[in-house]
Amino acid sequence: MKPRLFTPGPTPVPEETLLELAKPVTYHRAPEAKAILAEVSEDLKYVFQTTNPVFTLTSSGTGGMEAAVSNTLAADEKAILCTAGRWGERWRGILKAFGANIVAVEVPYGKAVTPEMLERALSTHPDAKAVFATLSETSTGVGHDLEAFGKLVAKTPALLVVDGISGLGAMECHVDKWNIDVCVTGSQKALMMPPGLAFVSVSGKAWRKIDSTPVRNFYFDLRRARKSLAESDTPFTPGHTLIRAQRVSLKKIRAEGIENLWARHARIASACRAGVQAMGLKVFAERPNNALTVIAVPQGVDGTATLKALEKKYGYKLADGQDTLKGTIWRLSHMGYTDAFDVLGALSAIELVLLDAGFKLEPGAGVSAFQKSYAAGK
Amino acid sequence: MKPRLFTPGPTPVPEETLLELAKPVTYHRAPEAKAILAEVSEDLKYVFQTTNPVFTLTSSGTGGMEAAVSNTLAADEKAILCTAGRWGERWRGILKAFGANIVAVEVPYGKAVTPEMLERALSTHPDAKAVFATLSETSTGVGHDLEAFGKLVAKTPALLVVDGISGLGAMECHVDKWNIDVCVTGSQKALMMPPGLAFVSVSGKAWRKIDSTPVRNFYFDLRRARKSLAESDTPFTPGHTLIRAQRVSLKKIRAEGIENLWARHARIASACRAGVQAMGLKVFAERPNNALTVIAVPQGVDGTATLKALEKKYGYKLADGQDTLKGTIWRLSHMGYTDAFDVLGALSAIELVLLDAGFKLEPGAGVSAFQKSYAAGK
Repeated sequence: MKPRLFTPGPTPVPEETLLELAKPVTYHRAPEAKAILAEVSEDLKYVFQTTNPVFTLTSSGTGGMEAAVSNTLAADEKAILCTAGRWGERWRGILKAFGANIVAVEVPYGKAVTPEMLERALSTHPDAKAVFATLSETSTGVGHDLEAFGKLVAKTPALLVVDGISGLGAMECHVDKWNIDVCVTGSQKALMMPPGLAFVSVSGKAWRKIDSTPVRNFYFDLRRARKSLAESDTPFTPGHTLIRAQRVSLKKIRAEGIENLWARHARIASACRAGVQAMGLKVFAERPNNALTVIAVPQGVDGTATLKALEKKYGYKLADGQDTLKGTIWRLSHMGYTDAFDVLGALSAIELVLLDAGFKLEPGAGVSAFQKSYAAGK
Repeated sequence: MKPRLFTPGPTPVPEETLLELAKPVTYHRAPEAKAILAEVSEDLKYVFQTTNPVFTLTSSGTGGMEAAVSNTLAADEKAILCTAGRWGERWRGILKAFGANIVAVEVPYGKAVTPEMLERALSTHPDAKAVFATLSETSTGVGHDLEAFGKLVAKTPALLVVDGISGLGAMECHVDKWNIDVCVTGSQKALMMPPGLAFVSVSGKAWRKIDSTPVRNFYFDLRRARKSLAESDTPFTPGHTLIRAQRVSLKKIRAEGIENLWARHARIASACRAGVQAMGLKVFAERPNNALTVIAVPQGVDGTATLKALEKKYGYKLADGQDTLKGTIWRLSHMGYTDAFDVLGALSAIELVLLDAGFKLEPGAGVSAFQKSYAAGK
């Protein structure tokens, strides 16, 4: 059986990127290593759609989120937290650990925080120093209207800090045009790499806040990173073989063109949602994003057992719901080195496993609806 | 020309470990991934010579050091810092960032902090909460007598926290027997891996201090790591393809046996020092360790230019001195996937480049002294 990875991180990685990882290790302070970091940093600016520097940290995405919190906020400073799921809660955990005064704007899982809700919070809390939001809430499949968030936050002294880990590079996101002050992503989602690197962009407005905030840690101190990156270097030994491999995947993104990539993901996501609905299933997210499709498990089907059968019988590895959502949703990623035909195959396998589970559907309903939508897209 | 890596991190990685990195990415929460983490954690305990848990963090070694500081010390608590070079200074930087009250026990570069110096500091500062030390001070080649340090610190309420990044797995180190409470290492030195993972062991005495210390961060919070590791898991997406590859290199270490590995490195280091001296050169470190040999550049030789020529003409990449030592020392690693014959080759190339630089030596003096010493060793 052919194993196929559809979890919303990690995602499939191109063969040439993997093979780069198998090359001999070289010295991380050599001029060649610095040239690679410089190139990767430029390509990241393109992916982020920013003219500001993008820093490469050797850590999970959560490490990048910690850098965002610890550099921008002093203890007890007020932060508006927009939370619509587990990854919003990750912001909360970090904010708590760093002693922030948290004002939470919360919605039930499956819903999105609206610009109106944020607007009210900003007007009630004009002393907020930063707003923390999530581009793609991968736990529910919700996407946030960051363009609208950015317009609101830009009018205030607060920073807009975004977890773009599970969406950046797959769904439309203009860091500069949308006024995102700090944006974080990780290597293992849309950027077609194994985990191990986090990337963080920092705006001029964010630097002014950072430069007037006391240092709170060492490893994630962005001031150190800024000083090093000016010399195409890192303050500590980086995961430089990962950086070398990230270069290969970023070149693939540049070759496709970021607008084309966004459009392709939008077309796939739209077709996938059409396929899901044609099977008689529901999309879980109220405001679904294009990085993944989250399917509500239908009544009478054991979500966790069926997902296991999907992997065991057909080789397709999707992700279950987390925490309270376990068994109630299936999360199907379109990110990374994944194309329309991969997603079509996944829908085929989902049809089959649902039939095995006794769920009533017309075989081919999902895949033909996918095909119809995809063919109509452009 | 054949490039050969002799920098004291990163070090050469076995081909089978590199090829593991080229395998397809799988899901990091799958039972197979947990089984691998469990296995790696056990093998790390063997390498550390501890029965305590060893945590795998996705970061550089410095991230592991930050975990050690931030978990064991509250702000303003007193820490005794033993510093004999750049890596002792790394401890200082982290301690400063976390607001420790630092009592520094310092020696000039090339010297080692002695147990007597530490004993005095401990008796003058009975309120010290922890002692920070370095196993292999890679910037100078010095090794510290951690066995003696451990005996002294064990008699006090303080913790012994050790940076073992550049030595653990190459030179003798018994974490439990020597009373090391927190020991940190990284993947890219003696553990035969690319950079990207840090490993941290924690003793029962250290846990008691950690559990009574306020949480200071999130990503490096060892309490979270402890909770996850109890289920063979990590709190955040780990660099799991690196962990998978680390397993391969750890198996190589287990197959050789840690005592055999220490003995082999001791024999190589001894032969290397004999070779260096037979060339008319001096070993820089007063108390040299077995992870690397640091050679004092002889008078009349341009250290930096000659090192560049060594790489360009003969393919051997050694490391220059750092900061004020630049141009005055050469650092030749024996760590990682390196054996006696590799080091012999490096000495041959050093002889040649010194002859090219007009330095007077008998060709073969170094390599034959190496051979003589190595043959006499066992």
